[in-house]
Amino acid sequence: MPIAKGDRVVLIDESYKKLIVSTEDPTDKYKGFGVFDPGTFIGKNYGEQVIIGTKPVWILPPRLLDKLQSIKRKAQIILPRDAALILMYCSIESGNRVIEGGIGSGSLTIALATAVAPTGQIISYDNREEFIRHAMRNLHKADLDQYVTTKERDITKGIEETDVDAVVLDIPTPWIVVPHAWKALKAGGFFCSYSPLISQVEQTVQELRRLPYIELHTIEHLQRNLVVSDHGTRPSFNMLGHTGYLTFARKIL
Amino acid sequence: MPIAKGDRVVLIDESYKKLIVSTEDPTDKYKGFGVFDPGTFIGKNYGEQVIIGTKPVWILPPRLLDKLQSIKRKAQIILPRDAALILMYCSIESGNRVIEGGIGSGSLTIALATAVAPTGQIISYDNREEFIRHAMRNLHKADLDQYVTTKERDITKGIEETDVDAVVLDIPTPWIVVPHAWKALKAGGFFCSYSPLISQVEQTVQELRRLPYIELHTIEHLQRNLVVSDHGTRPSFNMLGHTGYLTFARKIL
Amino acid sequence: MPIAKGDRVVLIDESYKKLIVSTEDPTDKYKGFGVFDPGTFIGKNYGEQVIIGTKPVWILPPRLLDKLQSIKRKAQIILPRDAALILMYCSIESGNRVIEGGIGSGSLTIALATAVAPTGQIISYDNREEFIRHAMRNLHKADLDQYVTTKERDITKGIEETDVDAVVLDIPTPWIVVPHAWKALKAGGFFCSYSPLISQVEQTVQELRRLPYIELHTIEHLQRNLVVSDHGTRPSFNMLGHTGYLTFARKIL
Amino acid sequence: MPIAKGDRVVLIDESYKKLIVSTEDPTDKYKGFGVFDPGTFIGKNYGEQVIIGTKPVWILPPRLLDKLQSIKRKAQIILPRDAALILMYCSIESGNRVIEGGIGSGSLTIALATAVAPTGQIISYDNREEFIRHAMRNLHKADLDQYVTTKERDITKGIEETDVDAVVLDIPTPWIVVPHAWKALKAGGFFCSYSPLISQVEQTVQELRRLPYIELHTIEHLQRNLVVSDHGTRPSFNMLGHTGYLTFARKIL
Repeated sequence: MPIAKGDRVVLIDESYKKLIVSTEDPTDKYKGFGVFDPGTFIGKNYGEQVIIGTKPVWILPPRLLDKLQSIKRKAQIILPRDAALILMYCSIESGNRVIEGGIGSGSLTIALATAVAPTGQIISYDNREEFIRHAMRNLHKADLDQYVTTKERDITKGIEETDVDAVVLDIPTPWIVVPHAWKALKAGGFFCSYSPLISQVEQTVQELRRLPYIELHTIEHLQRNLVVSDHGTRPSFNMLGHTGYLTFARKIL
Repeated sequence: MPIAKGDRVVLIDESYKKLIVSTEDPTDKYKGFGVFDPGTFIGKNYGEQVIIGTKPVWILPPRLLDKLQSIKRKAQIILPRDAALILMYCSIESGNRVIEGGIGSGSLTIALATAVAPTGQIISYDNREEFIRHAMRNLHKADLDQYVTTKERDITKGIEETDVDAVVLDIPTPWIVVPHAWKALKAGGFFCSYSPLISQVEQTVQELRRLPYIELHTIEHLQRNLVVSDHGTRPSFNMLGHTGYLTFARKIL
Repeated sequence: MPIAKGDRVVLIDESYKKLIVSTEDPTDKYKGFGVFDPGTFIGKNYGEQVIIGTKPVWILPPRLLDKLQSIKRKAQIILPRDAALILMYCSIESGNRVIEGGIGSGSLTIALATAVAPTGQIISYDNREEFIRHAMRNLHKADLDQYVTTKERDITKGIEETDVDAVVLDIPTPWIVVPHAWKALKAGGFFCSYSPLISQVEQTVQELRRLPYIELHTIEHLQRNLVVSDHGTRPSFNMLGHTGYLTFARKIL
Repeated sequence: MPIAKGDRVVLIDESYKKLIVSTEDPTDKYKGFGVFDPGTFIGKNYGEQVIIGTKPVWILPPRLLDKLQSIKRKAQIILPRDAALILMYCSIESGNRVIEGGIGSGSLTIALATAVAPTGQIISYDNREEFIRHAMRNLHKADLDQYVTTKERDITKGIEETDVDAVVLDIPTPWIVVPHAWKALKAGGFFCSYSPLISQVEQTVQELRRLPYIELHTIEHLQRNLVVSDHGTRPSFNMLGHTGYLTFARKIL
């Protein structure tokens, strides 16, 4: 399929570094890819390899993973592996209304927005205006800003919405939000908190136990690559030892 | 919110065993829940606990996780954790057309169908008619059958569709499907194979390397619960050591 | 080599269940192995398979692993994998004098005694007389009792010895022993604590930081079998998710 | 205790880098520690901190872990965690005679020699003369060379010794040694092979199954630090994803 005027495309270099641009973006210096005119991609076929400067680059239509892997980081981001488990264990579905606490760089927001599209909505609370602005630029680049409403408010002070499908938190003190989340959720709605520290998990779990929540559990997960080469197959020597614990619970009456 | 006539509901007992029924289903003996009339739930509120026989049961609107956790198994199923990573690393989005090879009991099909709703479609190949029938009963119960087309065909013989967003395999010989998948995929579309055995991974990776695929990688992941109790916090003694390896790749021209 | 009168032997059945007996033990009913006369093994060759009742059994000279795998449990035991890391990260060597706090069923004591033989000594504190008696029966069966001195005392009240090579703890409140251990250890001697709970680790680490200890670290480890069969190779589905955290430190002046 | 003339000591800097020297070694430039005269340590107390140049350094009597952590590497070494499990699952005890195949840099040899001291012996085969020389320098520095005999021979061609307690291999083709090991071992003796690749494990296991070996199993293990800080406790982000698989078996007749 040929690339059209106005298309957003993802450029992927041979080390799998990614950049999302619009074919209407101006000639400019793009970080890690050098100076080029995105308009020259019009008429090429998706899947082709082009040369930018001396760098061979594939051009593909941007998918969720591309959006996550090309965002500009302002803070530690939630990795795709964690986002994947959050979406599943909160049963995020098309049409859902989801509260997010702590927009960060918008990586989890991108995953949530993709999952609730085309009719759902993410309402993201963050009291740091510069994080909201930064995250929304990432969401705009990902063409997902229409699914996200932001609120420059401290979510530990309360949630204004009710009857929501899930409340997902990536903040330092998630336990304070547990009662607010209970009020905001519909029956059967999911609470989720992402926390690197064990004491955060403990306080959150204790608070969840005080309120009518069921299916309460905390997981951690480890992911490792399997390296298949001509010499033979083995697990990768490289491995991330920890990202964050994920605590889940579900509202009942 | 009150339960209405015709609603599907999920019943969850105190050990979190789940059953999905319609309020229009007849009085019957329901496995693990005893004899009851689902019509009596009409007018109750979602989130309430009711008593069936002597068993206290919560009634909630069924979400993705409920659908996965209440299916009837005919074969080893793909667990929610694996389905979560497949959806993410294949970037399955609303509106996608996805080929599935090996319908099994329909658990992965349920996850895929939820992710592509309301406008996408899963085309599932399986040459075992009784598996298709069993899986479709699970999909019907999950109210997702409208997103799934089945084909009683051996996917190793070829894929009829083209321009699809992803090809996802849970079959004993995924490597045979690698060239068929390449033809079926659109540029940038994702190949994924779930395989318990290392030799399956090796053959699949070798075949993927012969064709224009990028971002080729194989992962395994381990998940463990963190147990928070009054005595203290520790990782769970119970842990599943292995499910399957996930191999991903992406079509280019 | 033929089995002689007075030899201790290990019997191993086909599911690798183990029993250590002396060829001078009487005819008796031996749990899991039925009624037999150990004297009949005299003159057989080590490595032979004999029949006890209808059960085929190999006869071998008992080694450390046999001793650990055939002990009678009174409490949760420290597994060989944990004992292995304790021996290594405490650098337990032949000739060492080692303080043990909490004898339990004597499994760690067996490993420690083997490592310090033939000239070292384990001094094991436990204030539960029945545990000492039970553990010493296991050590006697393992022919290692000559390397172990027991003290029916609460180690949290103090350690009488000085100039010891290591202090190894498997007790509920290891942090109380941290100052006692510092006094008991020689310069460069190792402190080790085995604790299932994270709060135990935290309190112990905080106490260790108050005193002149270096090389302070806490580890956890996971072990998984690789299953090689005719179908193919894969990691085992069975896996133990947690045993205990191991905290190590080393005394300086 | 004061340091005496002729003592070997381990120097440990504040990042826990280690160097073993004798107080009779000459004034020299010692890699990572600068120029100094080891004789000046005589009369200091073990456990004291001294200043070398501007670097504060603790002086301790060298223990097994110091010896392993200060060896000069010529090849990839076997880590203390793997050596620990090899010693345990091969039941290496004081007095044992052990065959090693592949001396490498001598790290496993140091662990084995420590375990069999003071009356046992390691016989180490390696057909690369420069590796033997390099490893023996490490063993000499560790004061363990008296427990090690080296043979400049290819162990895949056969083992000359018989009636040994264990055969431990770190070579590319361990399966070729499986029948030689069976002949060399006493009844109940242990075979062990350390291999990074899955195909190495598969070939070794297949060969072990052809001969009278029992208790055959292959393990992998993962180790992770727990980080306890003022902010809170969490698993370490740093983690080694793989070292090698350990395959064990035991000779019967």
